[in-house]
Amino acid sequence: MNIHAKVPVGVLGASGYVGQELLQLLTRHPGASVVFATAESAAGERHDGVELLPIADAPLGRAEIVLSALPHGVSARYVQEARAAGKRAVDLSADFRLSPEAVYGLTEVTRPRLAAAELVANPGCYPTAALLALLPLALRGLIDESREVVIDAASGVTGAGRTAKRELLFGEVAEDYRAYSAGNEHRHLPELRATLEREGGFQGDLVFTPHLLPVKRGILETIHVPLTRLVDRATAEGVYDAVYADEPCVAVLHGTLPSLRDVVHRNRVAIGVAMVANVRRPRLTVIAAIDNLVKGAAGQAVQNMNVMLGLPETTGLIC
Amino acid sequence: MNIHAKVPVGVLGASGYVGQELLQLLTRHPGASVVFATAESAAGERHDGVELLPIADAPLGRAEIVLSALPHGVSARYVQEARAAGKRAVDLSADFRLSPEAVYGLTEVTRPRLAAAELVANPGCYPTAALLALLPLALRGLIDESREVVIDAASGVTGAGRTAKRELLFGEVAEDYRAYSAGNEHRHLPELRATLEREGGFQGDLVFTPHLLPVKRGILETIHVPLTRLVDRATAEGVYDAVYADEPCVAVLHGTLPSLRDVVHRNRVAIGVAMVANVRRPRLTVIAAIDNLVKGAAGQAVQNMNVMLGLPETTGLIC
Amino acid sequence: MNIHAKVPVGVLGASGYVGQELLQLLTRHPGASVVFATAESAAGERHDGVELLPIADAPLGRAEIVLSALPHGVSARYVQEARAAGKRAVDLSADFRLSPEAVYGLTEVTRPRLAAAELVANPGCYPTAALLALLPLALRGLIDESREVVIDAASGVTGAGRTAKRELLFGEVAEDYRAYSAGNEHRHLPELRATLEREGGFQGDLVFTPHLLPVKRGILETIHVPLTRLVDRATAEGVYDAVYADEPCVAVLHGTLPSLRDVVHRNRVAIGVAMVANVRRPRLTVIAAIDNLVKGAAGQAVQNMNVMLGLPETTGLIC
Amino acid sequence: MNIHAKVPVGVLGASGYVGQELLQLLTRHPGASVVFATAESAAGERHDGVELLPIADAPLGRAEIVLSALPHGVSARYVQEARAAGKRAVDLSADFRLSPEAVYGLTEVTRPRLAAAELVANPGCYPTAALLALLPLALRGLIDESREVVIDAASGVTGAGRTAKRELLFGEVAEDYRAYSAGNEHRHLPELRATLEREGGFQGDLVFTPHLLPVKRGILETIHVPLTRLVDRATAEGVYDAVYADEPCVAVLHGTLPSLRDVVHRNRVAIGVAMVANVRRPRLTVIAAIDNLVKGAAGQAVQNMNVMLGLPETTGLIC
Repeated sequence: MNIHAKVPVGVLGASGYVGQELLQLLTRHPGASVVFATAESAAGERHDGVELLPIADAPLGRAEIVLSALPHGVSARYVQEARAAGKRAVDLSADFRLSPEAVYGLTEVTRPRLAAAELVANPGCYPTAALLALLPLALRGLIDESREVVIDAASGVTGAGRTAKRELLFGEVAEDYRAYSAGNEHRHLPELRATLEREGGFQGDLVFTPHLLPVKRGILETIHVPLTRLVDRATAEGVYDAVYADEPCVAVLHGTLPSLRDVVHRNRVAIGVAMVANVRRPRLTVIAAIDNLVKGAAGQAVQNMNVMLGLPETTGLIC
Repeated sequence: MNIHAKVPVGVLGASGYVGQELLQLLTRHPGASVVFATAESAAGERHDGVELLPIADAPLGRAEIVLSALPHGVSARYVQEARAAGKRAVDLSADFRLSPEAVYGLTEVTRPRLAAAELVANPGCYPTAALLALLPLALRGLIDESREVVIDAASGVTGAGRTAKRELLFGEVAEDYRAYSAGNEHRHLPELRATLEREGGFQGDLVFTPHLLPVKRGILETIHVPLTRLVDRATAEGVYDAVYADEPCVAVLHGTLPSLRDVVHRNRVAIGVAMVANVRRPRLTVIAAIDNLVKGAAGQAVQNMNVMLGLPETTGLIC
Repeated sequence: MNIHAKVPVGVLGASGYVGQELLQLLTRHPGASVVFATAESAAGERHDGVELLPIADAPLGRAEIVLSALPHGVSARYVQEARAAGKRAVDLSADFRLSPEAVYGLTEVTRPRLAAAELVANPGCYPTAALLALLPLALRGLIDESREVVIDAASGVTGAGRTAKRELLFGEVAEDYRAYSAGNEHRHLPELRATLEREGGFQGDLVFTPHLLPVKRGILETIHVPLTRLVDRATAEGVYDAVYADEPCVAVLHGTLPSLRDVVHRNRVAIGVAMVANVRRPRLTVIAAIDNLVKGAAGQAVQNMNVMLGLPETTGLIC
Repeated sequence: MNIHAKVPVGVLGASGYVGQELLQLLTRHPGASVVFATAESAAGERHDGVELLPIADAPLGRAEIVLSALPHGVSARYVQEARAAGKRAVDLSADFRLSPEAVYGLTEVTRPRLAAAELVANPGCYPTAALLALLPLALRGLIDESREVVIDAASGVTGAGRTAKRELLFGEVAEDYRAYSAGNEHRHLPELRATLEREGGFQGDLVFTPHLLPVKRGILETIHVPLTRLVDRATAEGVYDAVYADEPCVAVLHGTLPSLRDVVHRNRVAIGVAMVANVRRPRLTVIAAIDNLVKGAAGQAVQNMNVMLGLPETTGLIC
């Protein structure tokens, strides 16, 4: 299917929810060949035709690029090892997201820096949706920074990982819904704030409240944006249209709002807007939805890898 | 169990989700006796031991008080008929919520007016949670009305009624999540605004965005409150403690936030707060949770009925 | 509410799903007063107004009867301790179900032996539904023992307990369904076989296959019964009607089949039948449904306790 | 990607659950080009990049092959119209499954007859899983026809279609589970019986009981097979291994049983077996799982189309 040889790829941490998604995407990827995949408790099992190895046995030398879905705090060490062995890397953990060593891999925003990157830090799932929704408005000077931007985000449980915890049992989560890390306590906030400022010049206040949804996958963020001036819905949609006109993985909706169904199992962010009636000062509500495991993690990692390798950006992805 | 005779009660509209819950509560109520219950498509069926009648056959004269769970727009006519027959009534529809004819039945707030009321308008589900969360802060002058109060609310699907609609099929709702009526378009907003002003003197702006949750029952509202002055969490909790100290159906949480599990199948609102860190101006996040069918509808109707009849307020209810 | 003093009751193991349900039932029970409740990891928490104690601190002497929802293998020891202290006991674990020391507490079947029992072994959830469905047919000689009785049972996940296991995570169970312990490997089979023989004289073969349902609570068993002679549906229903005519906690359906909705949150078994068309030898399909936490565990334990104490059998229960 | 021109394909009935899946598969199919797709209520909408037309406007002449996901009873007329226009067709409805005009499209079984077929009747979802599980045993003479084969099948709600019906609302189905069409009343039985006899020579009795699962997609069938002789598990697995050794879309499990997770979103049947202990006569329990929308409908239709067109059988499919 590809006249060029397939690029040999290594996967670190292939048994969590993100790692499984990543392995599935890569084993079906027409331009990549998975030369190894690691997992600890699942070592010895075969997933998607690949035998999982203990990480100590990973033949790093055989890969041209390594993608790591290891846990935060664990990933950095192995990514550094791969880098020391001369390998390019995409790290899906949070370990390099605030580090100057890595290029931040929000593909639509940092694409020009990715082609030559040796190390790409794949964004967090919540920041991916929030940034793609807020940056176009920030860059146009539409956000009134004297008022707070309020983000209520809801995520499916795969976002909380695959480690056995009582609070994540079906018997606890089904038919339930709750906020967590309220009061700006979520660990994704520094990444979100830093990127909004660096890429969008935004210096206002954020209030970010994540919630746990009784679904397997998907993130929907309801983003309340105070505006510097009144714009109608079509104008707001036009701002997104202009920025994302040629983006294969961004769906700007017109006159409707996204739901999880529009994005799950796809490497896509869907964005829709509503003007807020009956308030004295101008406001926009922006809804952004992604699949936390795809555009929010494994899919965007593959998208970044494609750019790094000079492959067509959506190779192996359904947007 | 009760030395007094049971009060004869009539139920209008007993086959929808609210009506079913109401009939179940009333048939188990130790101080009430259901003398009739109506339903149209389900007429002839027996629910909870009561045969459902077509509304035209309802023996209004046999009831002392009538509770109507008929749809909005339909209920008013039959409630007026019951009133004309000299019956007291609790209307669970929206038809009288903005009408001076009726006492607004937010029990904890309007209790003194309920005892003598002939007609009580039972509050909407979303306003019930929002009002019980916001009124104590408004009455203390803690809400900064120069900034908008942002409410993101999520409701289980029984809140959307039991009429067959494609968008409410299991195949559409399961694993999905979405906002609707965004931009302050929800029909509960006038009720919410009017009551906040009347009972709390609040004149600020609201931004209200409801969402559809893939659960059967329960509402959780994440309420973003700009504060007039910095208060710590314990102080904020203390405000609620003071107001709700003797309330059997309000659970003020300390140091934790409510989830749907805390409230479903109970006639309870649970309220928790979080101070917002890393913002320049003081802000509080309040989470309020109710069961939309109980404290948000049928349970509160029974609570109101109990007050009207001079019964202990939680008779027949689990708070 | 009760002119007699409330019976002091102790609960062992109150933090699992069964234990929580039991504590909730008992704290609302008008004839019982919970004098202690134990839990290990949750010791110190208050549930339903009762502070959970480490089991070592349980004041056994203060209770008149002890109900144990401790795990299998652990329960026996503490139940024996309570017995040695002169307390009557209901054990919800499997530890005494095959023991001659205990009366088997399938209330509708063994009621006469319960009043004087010192120790009652509460039946397993799967056997409860299967036995109430099969015993009336066995006692009438309707089951053709030369052919196998096939039982496919599906249970909500609370039946698997509240211990954190990866296979019970929401991310694994939601949208999934699977058989387990297929091939007659389930540990409830000896209890089921022994009771069918002892109480019904049944000596045929059983094939029992449990399945894990993505719901929180409820068991539905599809029971395939080879018949000794052809009977029509009304006749089969009549067999159940005759046996269960005065039973408050058994619902015999006529012309319809039960679903989980009919039984969850109730101490009820619902039974419906269908004749099998287009087969050469007579066969009946019986569907039985219960709430695994109520009639399948905590509710039946309370029902048994009521009989032991001489209270009306459904006190504190909704059937 | 393909040096040959893509085959022009038409889709009838693209807005139901099966039709949506079919359109998605075909628009991503590297060897096919969707030249039209029809839908009635959704006419005018674009799905997967294709504008849906009213069926009256379908340009039948532009397609080389037509796939119909129209409802049973409606499909035959339009398929005949396509046939009259000289088009080959795959009909996903039940309309031709018992007709000698059509080749029955159970790919693994009827493959040799498909290449030249003008009209293929795509099997029902329940029969697909049951037949692939039972035919290898029947052909080996392993099924004891003097005893009944009992099949308990559970299906996700998309199997019931996308028409708005109260019984399929999320509020009814979530947390519920129930049997339907019990007593051999399901309309798939004649298809199942006829095919078992025609392709496997099976003449025994079947007892088939479908159940409605609270999941979106997936079918799991628990199939109870009386055996003519005792075989151990490995031998039984070996029977399937032998028959399906080269089949890309059949996964024979060894020592484990399939669950829905193994098959959803894949064009795959997964089959596992368990020997039944503690019964007097030999018995096997076979579990078969498919995605009702993929291998049970749209995926198998594409698999059949590929064979008809001489394309590699799994083109455009993930097995």
